[in-house]
Amino acid sequence: MCRWMAYQGDPVYLESLLFKQEHSLIHQSLSARKSEVTVNADGFGLGWYDEREEPGLYHEVLPAWSDSNLKSLARHIKSGLFFAHVRSSTGTETNRSNCHPFSYKNWLFMHNGQIGGYESLRWQLDRLIPEHLYNHRHGATDSEVIFLLMIANGLEQKPEQAIETTLAQILDMMKQKKIQDPLRFTAVFSDGEEITAIRFSSDEHAPSLYCKQFEKHIVIGSEPLDHSSDSWTQVPAGHIAKIKGQEYQIQPLTELLKMTA
Amino acid sequence: MCRWMAYQGDPVYLESLLFKQEHSLIHQSLSARKSEVTVNADGFGLGWYDEREEPGLYHEVLPAWSDSNLKSLARHIKSGLFFAHVRSSTGTETNRSNCHPFSYKNWLFMHNGQIGGYESLRWQLDRLIPEHLYNHRHGATDSEVIFLLMIANGLEQKPEQAIETTLAQILDMMKQKKIQDPLRFTAVFSDGEEITAIRFSSDEHAPSLYCKQFEKHIVIGSEPLDHSSDSWTQVPAGHIAKIKGQEYQIQPLTELLKMTA
Amino acid sequence: MCRWMAYQGDPVYLESLLFKQEHSLIHQSLSARKSEVTVNADGFGLGWYDEREEPGLYHEVLPAWSDSNLKSLARHIKSGLFFAHVRSSTGTETNRSNCHPFSYKNWLFMHNGQIGGYESLRWQLDRLIPEHLYNHRHGATDSEVIFLLMIANGLEQKPEQAIETTLAQILDMMKQKKIQDPLRFTAVFSDGEEITAIRFSSDEHAPSLYCKQFEKHIVIGSEPLDHSSDSWTQVPAGHIAKIKGQEYQIQPLTELLKMTA
Amino acid sequence: MCRWMAYQGDPVYLESLLFKQEHSLIHQSLSARKSEVTVNADGFGLGWYDEREEPGLYHEVLPAWSDSNLKSLARHIKSGLFFAHVRSSTGTETNRSNCHPFSYKNWLFMHNGQIGGYESLRWQLDRLIPEHLYNHRHGATDSEVIFLLMIANGLEQKPEQAIETTLAQILDMMKQKKIQDPLRFTAVFSDGEEITAIRFSSDEHAPSLYCKQFEKHIVIGSEPLDHSSDSWTQVPAGHIAKIKGQEYQIQPLTELLKMTA
Repeated sequence: MCRWMAYQGDPVYLESLLFKQEHSLIHQSLSARKSEVTVNADGFGLGWYDEREEPGLYHEVLPAWSDSNLKSLARHIKSGLFFAHVRSSTGTETNRSNCHPFSYKNWLFMHNGQIGGYESLRWQLDRLIPEHLYNHRHGATDSEVIFLLMIANGLEQKPEQAIETTLAQILDMMKQKKIQDPLRFTAVFSDGEEITAIRFSSDEHAPSLYCKQFEKHIVIGSEPLDHSSDSWTQVPAGHIAKIKGQEYQIQPLTELLKMTA
Repeated sequence: MCRWMAYQGDPVYLESLLFKQEHSLIHQSLSARKSEVTVNADGFGLGWYDEREEPGLYHEVLPAWSDSNLKSLARHIKSGLFFAHVRSSTGTETNRSNCHPFSYKNWLFMHNGQIGGYESLRWQLDRLIPEHLYNHRHGATDSEVIFLLMIANGLEQKPEQAIETTLAQILDMMKQKKIQDPLRFTAVFSDGEEITAIRFSSDEHAPSLYCKQFEKHIVIGSEPLDHSSDSWTQVPAGHIAKIKGQEYQIQPLTELLKMTA
Repeated sequence: MCRWMAYQGDPVYLESLLFKQEHSLIHQSLSARKSEVTVNADGFGLGWYDEREEPGLYHEVLPAWSDSNLKSLARHIKSGLFFAHVRSSTGTETNRSNCHPFSYKNWLFMHNGQIGGYESLRWQLDRLIPEHLYNHRHGATDSEVIFLLMIANGLEQKPEQAIETTLAQILDMMKQKKIQDPLRFTAVFSDGEEITAIRFSSDEHAPSLYCKQFEKHIVIGSEPLDHSSDSWTQVPAGHIAKIKGQEYQIQPLTELLKMTA
Repeated sequence: MCRWMAYQGDPVYLESLLFKQEHSLIHQSLSARKSEVTVNADGFGLGWYDEREEPGLYHEVLPAWSDSNLKSLARHIKSGLFFAHVRSSTGTETNRSNCHPFSYKNWLFMHNGQIGGYESLRWQLDRLIPEHLYNHRHGATDSEVIFLLMIANGLEQKPEQAIETTLAQILDMMKQKKIQDPLRFTAVFSDGEEITAIRFSSDEHAPSLYCKQFEKHIVIGSEPLDHSSDSWTQVPAGHIAKIKGQEYQIQPLTELLKMTA
């Protein structure tokens, strides 16, 4: 299981969220070292927006807790909208090409979950990527192919519909191949203006997705960043959350919920 | 331009070829540091046969001259048939998945050259890989896709024919896409018993391929391993060389020569 | 806490011990991912003896479970005496120079434990390293400095005495600096012929040290390699274990036990 | 030989100097691939000042031209005073701890050159580092030890004097050890306000040091960043250059010139 967080609000040094929370993403991987939870040591990634149109990116295969570059970058980079991800591989290799977040033009995407039976679907999934997007296929993860299919299905114009279409396509393909394992998909993307997060699973066990509004910012992620988890809102499974400025809204993924009812 | 060498003969410590020749592969990259030639610092790879059926593999993205592991492995691993490769990327990322030699079952393959216009052909080339081989597509290089197509085209049964079919397929595709850049392909593969090397280009500039028979071994590679290059035989372009035990034979790639005549 | 194992016996492929035991070293780090125990993801190391006098060495900073090189090397390297170590850093940087085992001529050394207050002793400890050994100080760990002091104190001639002298020196230094934290030292070294392991702590909590005699080999390490830990002998704290061929002996560290009584 | 550059002026994206000059530092290493010059592929480093007191730092062992993180960071980080360095090792290992620039509080330092006979002096040099600075000794390079000795000798109060004292100390030590090889030292440091660069050698071959004033910034470095090298001023050997705002001054290293006259 991967872990991730996304931040929207007043520009802050990344370290204030990545290192200085009592249950920050880095602490989560550190605490993993103390046997409490799953280890996330298969790659780390950062994506952040600033004055440039396309986001900054940093990917590293060293464990986040021992990466001196990450520590310094997080002390010196400020952003009002950024993503961070620690990977726990579900099979594909540990290399930078497989680290989240993935990017396309001004878009960022990251993901926690898994396409059931991905190994037996990879050939078919890659063939769905249209030619003009194929040189953006840098790695071999299921996450990256989902992102590229979402773009192919109109992410830039109608994001909600692109998600539903893409996940429906994958569910169909899994059905044809008679795959029993679920499609689990808790993900987040952004165009640099607003953040959209999805919590979905074809079974009862959608990966967690927590959100909290602070005075001047909103954080959404796979786990709460402090230990008072009751002050965090769990997004219900089968729903989509949209964060724009200080506004936060959720709505159901109607079509998908029908498919998996 | 990549560089590579293959060895067949009495089992020796790898270092005797990799480090101890006056113009060894590591010296070639080291001498590159002295401005004489192209630098090969985009990844290194070793493949060697021993008592196991499938070969041993070692891939590293650090420059070969500064990799302490390589130095120790080459001092301690003995083999009677091994491959070594230093990469100079023609575009794709520097990561282990993109390092030669590539392997499949008991087969090793490595390559120097380039598919002209590869970026615009990658989508189509990947679609030629049959489903049962697709999970062997670990990286994004043209070299790996050529190897997988050679397997799809019968490398295990009729190697020469598989090479001709594969290169013809690619030449056709390039023609359809009106690509002017050449297909250059100087490559070597082995099943652990014999070594087959190919020197081919669709233009006049096939990458070099040198071979030398010593008392108890044969070496074939992109460059001579000593400075008396006149004692090395250059394999003619459009030809294939086969090394089995102490025997060395060459023959023309008839079909391909017709296509590019 | 680091983990390590040492093997003496009939030559075997390293994978039979590193990967194929139900509680192998790699499984131990893998199981760490399943929240059972401390994560060891701060570097991995192998040292093995073969026909060469000095041992082979392999050090890597990627987590052991995701290192494709390690997997292949362990399938292809055979040895009758080898060491393996997974590091969980106690402060110093994750880089290859800080990975165990450390080597000197035909000697290998690795360690689990910690010099209490090492940060405030490092200057003084490094000054104890004699000039002729100083270019063997590659990294910054307490483990490496202990090894170099053991060599300075006569490891090659009288190993037991060298250990006692070195640990006594460090205990004295800690006393002068009024350091309360303990000196914990569970370590192993070899000259390629016999294995010597030490279990010691200046407090009641010496890191564990287990040993088991099989039909044709002996394994000693920080943890049992299977789940029937009652079939493994725990070496008592304050003792030294010597393994030569199929013989296994333990004796107390008399002088040190007096010092810390 | 290493290469480096330092920038002072209006805040700019780092890429405008690192990538977009016709003879930028990255181009210099890239052109090295085209056989023109020495390869610098043994580590890269960046240090930059922003609103924080201490500088940001980024060190990487991959060749600069193939590091996707560097490319993105250089597009997104802006600074009015920054350092960049590409390393060509003179012996010590390629790891991040050995990459320039080195830092201490608000200070940055980087270096091109070499202490003649460093291997035989390292023990004595490290013993000169005072206890309170010793935990800043992360790696094993001569460059880092020079920097720490400069701090010990008063860099923060009287930089020029600290340089002369330190280099005189090293020259004395080399003389005692009867080392014939020269001390070559072309270096630069900053406190975040002004840049000081030194060009010195105990023989006739001080490494080059070029400077150029543009309308709104000054660049100083081991090589010109464009091909009109006549528009760049070569700092004379045995001199020190100071850059503050748009001012640029040079003065001789009087004491050192006496010593080596």
